[in-house]
Amino acid sequence: MTAINAGSGRSLTDLFTEAARQALDDSGVDRIDSLYVGNMMSGFLQKQEHLGALMATSLGREGVPTYKVEAACASGGVAVNAAVKAVLSGLEDIVLVGAVEKMSGYTTAEVTEGLMMAEDRLKVAPTGVTFVGLNAMIAREYMHRYKVTHESIAQFPVLCHENALNNPKAQFRKKVGIEDVLRSPLVADPLRLLDCSGMGDGAAAVILAPKDVAGKYADSPVEVAASTVASDALSLYQRPMITTFEASRRASDRAYKLAGIGPNDVDVLEVHDAFSVLGVMALEDLGFAEKGSGTKLLDEGECAREGRFPTNNFGGLKARGHPVGASGLYQVAEVALQLKNEAGKCQVPGAEVGLTQSVGGIGSTVAVHILQGMK
Amino acid sequence: MTAINAGSGRSLTDLFTEAARQALDDSGVDRIDSLYVGNMMSGFLQKQEHLGALMATSLGREGVPTYKVEAACASGGVAVNAAVKAVLSGLEDIVLVGAVEKMSGYTTAEVTEGLMMAEDRLKVAPTGVTFVGLNAMIAREYMHRYKVTHESIAQFPVLCHENALNNPKAQFRKKVGIEDVLRSPLVADPLRLLDCSGMGDGAAAVILAPKDVAGKYADSPVEVAASTVASDALSLYQRPMITTFEASRRASDRAYKLAGIGPNDVDVLEVHDAFSVLGVMALEDLGFAEKGSGTKLLDEGECAREGRFPTNNFGGLKARGHPVGASGLYQVAEVALQLKNEAGKCQVPGAEVGLTQSVGGIGSTVAVHILQGMK
Repeated sequence: MTAINAGSGRSLTDLFTEAARQALDDSGVDRIDSLYVGNMMSGFLQKQEHLGALMATSLGREGVPTYKVEAACASGGVAVNAAVKAVLSGLEDIVLVGAVEKMSGYTTAEVTEGLMMAEDRLKVAPTGVTFVGLNAMIAREYMHRYKVTHESIAQFPVLCHENALNNPKAQFRKKVGIEDVLRSPLVADPLRLLDCSGMGDGAAAVILAPKDVAGKYADSPVEVAASTVASDALSLYQRPMITTFEASRRASDRAYKLAGIGPNDVDVLEVHDAFSVLGVMALEDLGFAEKGSGTKLLDEGECAREGRFPTNNFGGLKARGHPVGASGLYQVAEVALQLKNEAGKCQVPGAEVGLTQSVGGIGSTVAVHILQGMK
Repeated sequence: MTAINAGSGRSLTDLFTEAARQALDDSGVDRIDSLYVGNMMSGFLQKQEHLGALMATSLGREGVPTYKVEAACASGGVAVNAAVKAVLSGLEDIVLVGAVEKMSGYTTAEVTEGLMMAEDRLKVAPTGVTFVGLNAMIAREYMHRYKVTHESIAQFPVLCHENALNNPKAQFRKKVGIEDVLRSPLVADPLRLLDCSGMGDGAAAVILAPKDVAGKYADSPVEVAASTVASDALSLYQRPMITTFEASRRASDRAYKLAGIGPNDVDVLEVHDAFSVLGVMALEDLGFAEKGSGTKLLDEGECAREGRFPTNNFGGLKARGHPVGASGLYQVAEVALQLKNEAGKCQVPGAEVGLTQSVGGIGSTVAVHILQGMK
């Protein structure tokens, strides 16, 4: 993973190759059979597509099959899923999958327009609503329906900022309190600045291989126990209920089944808290709490490192940062480090099973991964 | 496949769902397990990403895993390859893969800038060269190195226009002669208007499934005997030789090996003739002719329907049309129809084995498919 920041001045290629070279060096693999690149906005912001061949060339790996995979803010997680299928297909053994996003160097208006590419351009964007605005509707409805206060929800970004203090690659390494969240500038009512993830540049990468091949290279490879993707109706107006993401439920239900475990078996999780309320909803939709009671886990300290479900231990989207198309891959890389006991100050002691959840659009696409250490 | 034309005024969704519904109806499948969407320029031209969830929703298939796959002008072919791996992974049985591009309704300057997204935005685009200009360099070098005349090369678009007369969905159903090509307006020396594919809107789709599943639905399913992707250094300046596409050689060598056949076993082919010279080079790089002698096949009539290697029987990129990110899927759909003996007036009698070649960028990514009828 690269450090995440805004104003890096670095190119997509520069960011991607840093992460990819780290992954190649760490894994010790001497070849790759294919390359998958997750990214959302390069066509719109950088006027650059064909990232597969571009990145393969930049890595000196031209020749291999290459793919760009896009699924809005879930691009990184969905790219991992596509790469897992490549390995399972038997056609490719060692697959490099990375994801990159560069959001800085553009105006807020440009990035705001870019984010709306995740929604329906013809039916929703013309109303003038922004991506934050749609999430604000969810927050308002969530607070209303379940009688949950903003104070309660604000515990989520507070936790993320606390955890990010331990992550040298995090974008926002600054402790904040609940009052800081509630008093930060209003972005889209009721969401305030500290309810929202920021804009940053970053890239992350992992190497995938069949178990027997991975064992030859890595001392402590991590097993992909499940990799799933599910979708939902693209737009909020098309759904009967907006305070749950059916795609999260579908993807995680299938993942638990594939892995043969349940939420109680999970030791660490990284969830998609692009906005504070989404972090709380993720705890519910993934089965860690009943609908409407996600904040109780926070009240009881269960999402902290010493709790039952240590969450967003590297800072999450809120504080580690959210280079949109790359975030899903950061999550996978972070959980892999946890299970390898290489997470540094972010380490959750004894973590053996980890889960990631990456969301594209307003819950329209969700990728879930369950990883576990290999004995 | 939708008919291809410019100025359709139709949306990406409208185009895609027409093709997808045709594929679903033709195949008779009652469910899909995932959806792959190939597309190159939607982020840049339509300011729309997240085509996976958008198209699944439009088809009433929300819930399934969805993916957008991009590899410049090879997006359609590469999407098919990614979908083939999904089926081989064992995780999904029935996969809908479609591809769509909408290029009309924009200025030539906008589309020209969009096409350069296939090349290196930071190192090549600033020189001012256009995508056509880079292909013109190849044409000039090809003619010089192999002492081949423009007249000889112009046989390729003449053949495509001839074939397109039989295809009701083709964009340019007009017979042209060699003199017409040579006298058409200069676009980028030596390439003239009739050496170049045009801008159009279109979508195509196919359904993939394991053999036993396909047999349950289709009377005459077609076997994917090989599906390969290869890349090359992204930019022309990075290659020792520009008159051959190494990625074509790599992808087709592997495909022939996987299918256990050679070029002489191929009955029909659809190759990526975005510019006339590329059609000739494809014949060579895919093993149908020695390097520098592709035009001899044309001289001898071997690429015509009654020849040994009937080529671009639906009109190819030149005359069927080239909605860039969709063309690779048109090719696969066209060859599938040939092998099912459902190609109408484009039918090559008795065709049993077909090959497609789809090129992304200036030969930086190539997807090859070998299909054969199932007995």
